[in-house]
Amino acid sequence: MKILVVGANGQIGKHLVSFIQETEGVTAKAMIRNDEQAAYFENLGAETVVVDLEKGIETIAIAAEDVDAIVFTAGSGPHTGKDKTIMVDLDGAVKTIEAAKKAGVKRFVMISSFDTRREAILSAPPSFAPYVAAKYYADEWLRQTELDYTIIHPGALTNNKGIGQVEVGVDLARGEVPREDVARVILACLENDATIGKEFQVIKGAKSVTEAIASI
Amino acid sequence: MKILVVGANGQIGKHLVSFIQETEGVTAKAMIRNDEQAAYFENLGAETVVVDLEKGIETIAIAAEDVDAIVFTAGSGPHTGKDKTIMVDLDGAVKTIEAAKKAGVKRFVMISSFDTRREAILSAPPSFAPYVAAKYYADEWLRQTELDYTIIHPGALTNNKGIGQVEVGVDLARGEVPREDVARVILACLENDATIGKEFQVIKGAKSVTEAIASI
Repeated sequence: MKILVVGANGQIGKHLVSFIQETEGVTAKAMIRNDEQAAYFENLGAETVVVDLEKGIETIAIAAEDVDAIVFTAGSGPHTGKDKTIMVDLDGAVKTIEAAKKAGVKRFVMISSFDTRREAILSAPPSFAPYVAAKYYADEWLRQTELDYTIIHPGALTNNKGIGQVEVGVDLARGEVPREDVARVILACLENDATIGKEFQVIKGAKSVTEAIASI
Repeated sequence: MKILVVGANGQIGKHLVSFIQETEGVTAKAMIRNDEQAAYFENLGAETVVVDLEKGIETIAIAAEDVDAIVFTAGSGPHTGKDKTIMVDLDGAVKTIEAAKKAGVKRFVMISSFDTRREAILSAPPSFAPYVAAKYYADEWLRQTELDYTIIHPGALTNNKGIGQVEVGVDLARGEVPREDVARVILACLENDATIGKEFQVIKGAKSVTEAIASI
């Protein structure tokens, strides 16, 4: 199974490509913004493809032509300019979804935000609300497709070393989760088709990733 | 026919409420952000209702309960902060659409941007692209509903005195149009059910508004 990682050069993306390359039966194709980002992935033995997510659907679709699954983990983050919030977190995600349809790639894993329900847009601090709104619309767009999607809603992301143990659920209390463990969760979803059509929150916890994902 | 004008205090909105109040058989309910904006509309004999578009759907739905049609002409404009672009131009529009459904108001007229096709997001200048994207997603949301919608795509808006003459079409060359004439076009759409389920561009031209709208 070859997996196109959109946003490979982000912190979750880098962990994910690394885990994929260590795993039997899966290989990664890292979608990156420019050639200077390629060396990290080439050292892991992963393929790379240079695509600017702010360009058209067609170039993303071409990058997706030979893959079996797509992971969208690109993100401007909540603290970039709000123009990037709509252009990357919303429109970049939707273009990737449309590219998946165009390329005939059914399996799609979306890295969303912890709470993207409509009420969360209202209750978010004003500076964070546009980011929640962008993720809300991207998730909604994906739900309306026929793709085999999984939507992952991680808690507050940290750069702490992963512990490989998480808690998953649909209405968890807010909590932290290391980016490294989110990457493990993504890979576990790709390896477990029971996660298709599902979405869940994830924070650090007491279950192994495999066990937690199997419980979904 | 009572018409809820969302964004009544904008320049198009003010012209529109004024035209509605001058017209037999229609009355306006001006949705405004705060009480200080009420006097202009009360002087025209229009109802007012104070709703913050950045709040929830429920308050908009309550404002819409006794109306027969909704016009969405609120807009942060392309030059406000990009946080407002997503919160007003996209999320404000979608909340108004959802409020229309909730309140059982079928007729909905959306004031969009001149070109909101996906390709227009790509070809727009970078500073304008987030606005086009916001309008693209709002229009798409409306098209997916069962509402009796009309989407109006005006050319470059000016504050010139309206001439009451326009050109309408689906792939016009870019051109200007006075806000006053856009307001006339909105009212003409509300008075002509043949515009339901349609969308069109409008710039200044040689036909009377009534004649132009009848040609759609």
